[in-house]
Parts: sequence; structure tokens; C-alpha cells
Amino acid sequence: MTELDPGLYFLSEFVGTAMLVLLGCGVVANVVLAQTKGFAGGTLMINWGWGLGVFAGFLVSAYSGAVLNPAVGLGLMIAGTITPWMFALATVAEVLGGIVGAVLCWVSYKKHFDAEPDAANKLGVFSTGPAIRGAGFNLVTEIIATFVLVFVIFAFADYGDISVGVPGGLGPLTGLPVALLVVGIGASLGGPTGYAINPARDLGPRIAHALLPIAGKGSSDWGYAWIPVVGPLAGGALAALAAPLLLGLAA
Amino acid sequence: MTELDPGLYFLSEFVGTAMLVLLGCGVVANVVLAQTKGFAGGTLMINWGWGLGVFAGFLVSAYSGAVLNPAVGLGLMIAGTITPWMFALATVAEVLGGIVGAVLCWVSYKKHFDAEPDAANKLGVFSTGPAIRGAGFNLVTEIIATFVLVFVIFAFADYGDISVGVPGGLGPLTGLPVALLVVGIGASLGGPTGYAINPARDLGPRIAHALLPIAGKGSSDWGYAWIPVVGPLAGGALAALAAPLLLGLAA
Amino acid sequence: MTELDPGLYFLSEFVGTAMLVLLGCGVVANVVLAQTKGFAGGTLMINWGWGLGVFAGFLVSAYSGAVLNPAVGLGLMIAGTITPWMFALATVAEVLGGIVGAVLCWVSYKKHFDAEPDAANKLGVFSTGPAIRGAGFNLVTEIIATFVLVFVIFAFADYGDISVGVPGGLGPLTGLPVALLVVGIGASLGGPTGYAINPARDLGPRIAHALLPIAGKGSSDWGYAWIPVVGPLAGGALAALAAPLLLGLAA
Amino acid sequence: MTELDPGLYFLSEFVGTAMLVLLGCGVVANVVLAQTKGFAGGTLMINWGWGLGVFAGFLVSAYSGAVLNPAVGLGLMIAGTITPWMFALATVAEVLGGIVGAVLCWVSYKKHFDAEPDAANKLGVFSTGPAIRGAGFNLVTEIIATFVLVFVIFAFADYGDISVGVPGGLGPLTGLPVALLVVGIGASLGGPTGYAINPARDLGPRIAHALLPIAGKGSSDWGYAWIPVVGPLAGGALAALAAPLLLGLAA
Repeated sequence: MTELDPGLYFLSEFVGTAMLVLLGCGVVANVVLAQTKGFAGGTLMINWGWGLGVFAGFLVSAYSGAVLNPAVGLGLMIAGTITPWMFALATVAEVLGGIVGAVLCWVSYKKHFDAEPDAANKLGVFSTGPAIRGAGFNLVTEIIATFVLVFVIFAFADYGDISVGVPGGLGPLTGLPVALLVVGIGASLGGPTGYAINPARDLGPRIAHALLPIAGKGSSDWGYAWIPVVGPLAGGALAALAAPLLLGLAA
Repeated sequence: MTELDPGLYFLSEFVGTAMLVLLGCGVVANVVLAQTKGFAGGTLMINWGWGLGVFAGFLVSAYSGAVLNPAVGLGLMIAGTITPWMFALATVAEVLGGIVGAVLCWVSYKKHFDAEPDAANKLGVFSTGPAIRGAGFNLVTEIIATFVLVFVIFAFADYGDISVGVPGGLGPLTGLPVALLVVGIGASLGGPTGYAINPARDLGPRIAHALLPIAGKGSSDWGYAWIPVVGPLAGGALAALAAPLLLGLAA
Repeated sequence: MTELDPGLYFLSEFVGTAMLVLLGCGVVANVVLAQTKGFAGGTLMINWGWGLGVFAGFLVSAYSGAVLNPAVGLGLMIAGTITPWMFALATVAEVLGGIVGAVLCWVSYKKHFDAEPDAANKLGVFSTGPAIRGAGFNLVTEIIATFVLVFVIFAFADYGDISVGVPGGLGPLTGLPVALLVVGIGASLGGPTGYAINPARDLGPRIAHALLPIAGKGSSDWGYAWIPVVGPLAGGALAALAAPLLLGLAA
Repeated sequence: MTELDPGLYFLSEFVGTAMLVLLGCGVVANVVLAQTKGFAGGTLMINWGWGLGVFAGFLVSAYSGAVLNPAVGLGLMIAGTITPWMFALATVAEVLGGIVGAVLCWVSYKKHFDAEPDAANKLGVFSTGPAIRGAGFNLVTEIIATFVLVFVIFAFADYGDISVGVPGGLGPLTGLPVALLVVGIGASLGGPTGYAINPARDLGPRIAHALLPIAGKGSSDWGYAWIPVVGPLAGGALAALAAPLLLGLAA
């Protein structure tokens, strides 16, 4: 890749995040909405659905190196891997991708949104919310969970080059490590806040929820919306700062 | 491979799809039919069963590059990867393979088909059906889910050559990416229609259901049968058209 | 490897099968015996436990190429990959390994065998039994399921050399394809008979059950014991005969 | 790596074990504490959470080769792979990492610890305990389970070099074999004692439990604490002694 095409870079992040959010919100819809075939399929199913959503989003976002997450992008910018301009471009693309992915999820599950009586379940398909509300600890949980995500992604470099557009020897399994990581974070740290760990994954769908004509929808809970934005960004930034200090080989 | 042998190509698609459908229908039988050891094993188990069915079907279909699905075949034909003649040959082989796989599943679970009181559960082992009936949205869900499948398969090319018969460096794990993708699509987009995402996987077993002397069987629901054929084909075609526009590296 | 050492070959099969059976019987103990932490953990957990038991058994059996299963061994002998002498040696080692693995499982879960009131559950940890008894169809199910196992293992050759002692480029993931295959067969075809698909896995533990001083144990169900021996051997032989005809690249 | 830096070696083991324990204790918190999103998510979810915790811990511990476990370290020392000094250094780092990981888990789930009425559940997030108490068999179970872990890790060498700091061709999937192994051991041998199989994983969090101001906490069960230390060390030592005798290729 001699020079980066901004349009293709934007497109790649947009498409990848739309894919991630379509599948990620989709598995929640399958497990929580009325009369689906996956109703009450369990937390582990949600964890695999989100992880494999990342797997699919990663695969369709090769041009841009599959950032897919402003918390990851901020970390990469702090580390000097991407420029502020690339970070800004990617972030806008990711939020727009999150909106479009959520709309496609809603279309896919339209009949089940109509059949679902509980407005909170409808919002839960789109965006995260706390199990026990409390800004301080909710924020801390998102910071720690996103720190894990971005810190481990930085550690990938200790196991071989993961430059943008250079997928390495794993072929289409290149995205599997981050997918498994997301399954693990969801299972382990998703309990208190539903693991946004990605501002675009939460904000994009929340905007979609606010705009879409969802039957019987309730509040989009904008009072909580800053936590899954600020927490992940803080966690990603901390991980980028900590990585050179704590990861031996990269140091 | 200097020249393609049509008979071996046909055989490869036939065997691969029979394997896929035997294991795929098998896991549904295990979870839904009376008195099985996997009764009520949950949706995630069904998702893994189908995904690993694709994994096994892929492995036994190396000669033809493991198309296994007319929606994938149509996409490859539109992209110019396979010829119309190969597409036609593969499609016939896949539907026949689907019939044979379903028959083998029925034989494997014969005693449990006999013990099962609900005719709808019996059909559910063979073919998909909607959770909430409605041709428009059922079709849309199948289009979106199959678009995801075929679009991501096209993206594999961004991570290395996946020519027919050239398995690359992953050895027997070559089929794992598509297997994981099918697990993810099932978990995320399978809620409304049970994710046919493959005309041969649905039509072949439905024909088997109509022909087999299944004790206490009900309707084969032919009124719905066009949706898991037309939806996946439309989704696959759209993915093939969208891939050059939306996948950066392939463009 | 210039020449095969019979003692090391025997040892390798013995150790690998003991490992496989310890973990495989272990997961059943965890799910079915009284007061365990995994009680009622579900069928999918059993499927993963057996599959990862194969994964571990494979890894500790590199010297002999991890046959671990007389049905696989018979297939390899028919294909000319191993000699009748190696097949015989491996089979004896595998049955003895199955006995030892089952004894270690019993020791690991001793307190829970003591606490379990149901004798059938105790036998179920050791050996398979039919969900609905009927020799004909039980046998057919074991034949089909084992055919799938051995046939797909033969297909691995289409994706690269899998000679004895030559693990290829996947390193310690070399055994993952067969492990995933066993997860899939369990989920999909395990419903009627509990998927022995391996005479040593069933006969070895059944002998252990008969010999061990298990508190409150019942019959070892020897009337059924021939089915998980004959069925898998027939399935493995059929797969070896069918592979050259049905697998394109190997032909 | 020309010469080992003791500080970086210590740091690498500290960081890796903290990561492992944060995610491992986290999944237990998610499944057992009151009002979490993963409440009652099942044993298989716990098994995947611990396995993927090992996966993440492995990745961030490349400098030291990801020992992460004094039972593994003891085995490596007996085999001559690491020096007694490295073993001692790693062990202290691992126990401290275990404490810090457990503290981070407690912070992440603070509101749910406050909401949980059962003191035993709180301790269960931190440390293992027996399903049926009995020092002899509890010890035996930990010895067998840890033997499996360390013995199979030794077998990795039969599938390629796994020198410290030389990750091989799997890139960020290098840690996947041990992660899958931990999933399997948990599913298969975790039933009686909750599979400590790692003194640092149990002792570190138990110290954290004793020190932290956890609301409504009960005893740290120090009477049991020696078993998940002595058992895993014995199992690891036995595996190191048995490996040259039982693993053909390494012999």
C-alpha cells in the first residue's frame, strides 16, 4: 500500500463497524426479544455473538486494518501508529457504521421488536446499560474492560507484525485473536455494564434507537450515554500509555 | 489442477453438502426431538452444530473448493470465479446432497422421530420456518443474513488467496473461518427465520421430508419454501455486487 | 523418524487414549454426578469436554500420530497407512489406555460417585448407552457417526500432509481440526446413542466400571457393549473404503 | 534475546497473571454475584472465561514466555528450562499478580459484591473451594488436573519449538492451545474442587479476599488454602518427571 486513500479508509471502517454492530446487536435481539428462536439463549451465546461479530467486522475491514473502535483508534494514535487525521476519520466512520448496523439489525428483527412488550429490552438490543446504576463504578468497569481490550491488542505486536493491511500468516483467521478476546472480556467483565468497550458500538446504535420509528420504544437513556463513550476512551488511552511500560518485548 | 473434471466437481459438492446437512439437521434433531441426549440443549448448541457441520462439509469438498451453497455459488458466478456451467452443476449437486444428508439424519434419529409427538418439530429438523410469519420481513432477514455470509467470504480474499483447490497455510483449519462465520450468523441473525442462508440446505431437506415415510409427519410447508431459496440467492447476488465497491483491498 | 519403536508406539497410544478418556469421562461426571460444580451444565459442555479431551490426547500422542481409536486405526490399516501389526498394537494400547483413563476419572470424582444415588448415572460416566434401546438403529447411528469421523479425517490429507510424526505448520493446534470435528459429531449425532464412535473409549471404561469397587454401582450393561465396538469399526471401515471414491483430491 | 532482564521477567509474569486472574475471577463474579448480566450463565461460560483469561494473560506475557503458574514453573525448573532463580522470581510475581488481578476484579464488580447476600459466593469469586470437602480426594483431584495441564504443555514441544520469547508461526494465536486446554480441564476435571491448577491463581486472590474491605465478607477459608497450592505443585512436578518417560518424541 503506497499511500492511504482517505475515502477507502473511511469506507473500510464504516463497513467493518456496520458489520460488527449488525451481528452484535443481532445476538442481543435474538436472546432478549419476544418469540425469537434464540430467546433466553444465555449470556455465553451473547458473548460468542459479539466476538464473532468482531471476527466478521475485522474481515471486511482489511484496508484500514480493522480499527472498528474509537477506543482502539485513540490508543493507536497515542502510540503513533495512526495520525490524528486518521483517528478522526475512522471515528466518524465507525459511529456512522454503528448507526447503519443498528438499523439493519432493527430491520432484521422488525417483527420481534413489534411483538416485544418491554421498552427496556428494545433499548437493550441497541445500547448498553448498567445492571446497577452508579456513574462512578460503571465508568470504572468500562475503563478496566477497555483497558484489557486495547492492552492485549497492543501485545499482539509481540507475536508478529500487525501493520495495517498486512494480515500475516493466519489468513482469514487473522481476526480470531481479537474475536476471542472480546468473547473473554464479555464473559468476564460484562456483568456490571454490558461491556460497551467501544464508543461507536454504543453511541451509533443509541442514535439509531432515537431516530428509528420503533413501535413502543421508550427513552434512549441519554443520561447514561456518556459513560460508554468516556470510559472506553479513557481505558484505551491508559492502555496505550501503559503498553510500552508493561509489555516487555514491545519496550 | 490442470483441468476440472465435471464428475469430480459434482461429486465434491454433493458429498460436502450431504455432510453439512447431515450434521446441521442432526443438531436440530438432537435439541428438539423427544428423548434425545441433547434435548433442550439450547440455541448456542444448534449454532455450533451448524457451524461445525460447515467445517466438516468444507473439509470433504476440497476438489470443488467447497461452495456447498447456491447463494455462495451465485455470488462466485457473478464475480466470475466460477462459470455458469459450474454454478448449475454445483447447485444440482448441492440440492441432491441436501436430500441425502437429510435422509441420513432421519435414519440416525429414526427412533426419536417415531417418539416425537409434534409434527412441527419433525419438519423443523429438516427445514427452516419463521418464528413470526410474514413473507416480506422473513425474506428481508434471509437476504441480510446471507449477504453477511457471502460478503465476508468475499473478504477472505483480502487475507490471502482462496482459489479452488488451494487451501493455503491453515491446513485442515482452512474451513474454520467460514465455520465460525456460520456460528456467528446463526447466533446473531437466526432469530426470526432460523437462518437458511442456503437454498440447498433448506430445499433439499424439505424434499426429503416430503418423500420420506416419517411417522406422524405433517405438512412440508411448501408455501414458505420459496423464501429460503429466493432470499439467500438475492443476498448472495447483492454481496457479489457490493463486494468490489465496499471491500477496499479487493477493489 | 527412521524406524518405528514398537514400545514407544504402544506407549504413545496408551498415554493419548488415557488422556482422552480421563477428560471425556470427566466432563460427563462433572455434568451428571451429584453435587459437582458443573452439575446440569448441559449437552454443549459435554460436547466441548469430549472434543477438548481429544485435543489433549492428540497432543500427548505425537510419536504414534495420535490414532487413539480402533475405528480410525482400522480405517488407516485398510488404507495402507499403518500395518496390521501397528493396528493390533495400537488397539490393545488404546483399550488399556481407556481403562486407565476411566480409573483416573473415578479417582478424581470419587466423592461424587459416593454421593450419587443413581447407578445408571454412574455407568453413564464410563460408557455410552442408548437413549431409546434398539440394536438395529443404535448400531446404524454409531456407524453413521463414526463414518463421519473417519471420513473427514481422511479428508485432512486434501489439506496437506498428515504423516505420522509430521505435525505441519499448525504446531500445537495440529489436533484442533479433529477436536472440533468431535465437538460437532457429538452435538449433531450424539442424541440417540451418546456417540461412542470409538471402541476403546467405550470398552475400556466399561471394563473399568466392571472391575472398580464403585459404591452402589449397577450393571455394566454388557448386552449393549458390542454395539459401540462393532458400529464404530464398521463405520471406520466404510469410511476408508469410501474415501478414495468420494474425496476428489485424494483420488 | 541475548540476556534476560530480571526486572522485565518479573514484570512480564506479574502483568500476565494479573490479567489471567482479573478475567478468570471476573467470569465467576459475572455468573454468581447478584444482579449481574451474566447471572446463572452456566459452567461452560465459566470454563470459557477462565480459558480466555489464560489466552489474554499469555499474550501480555511474551517476554517471560508466559509461565503464569508456579505449577508450570516448577515443572519447567525440573526439566531445566528455567533456573531456580527464574522460578522463584516468577512465582513471587505470579502471586502478586494474582492479588492485583483479584483487586481489579473486585473493583469491576464492586456494586455486585455489595448487593450479594451470600458470603460464600463472594469468596468463590476469589478462590476455589471443594464441592465435597475431604482433604485427601480434594488434593488428588488437584494433582490429577494439574498433571494434565503441565503434561500437555510439555507435549507442545513435540509440535515445534516453544522457547521463551519465540512465538512461532501462530502469531497471536500462540496461546490458544493452552487456553483450550484450560477450557477442557475446567469442563472435565473442575467438578470436585473448581480447578485451581495454579497456586498463584488461588493464593493471590485469597490474600486479596483477606485484605480487601469487602462488604459482608466471611472467612477466607485458610484451612483449605494449602490444597490448591500443594496439589498443583505436586501435579506439575509429577508431570515434569513423567514427560520424558511418556512423551515419545521428546524422549
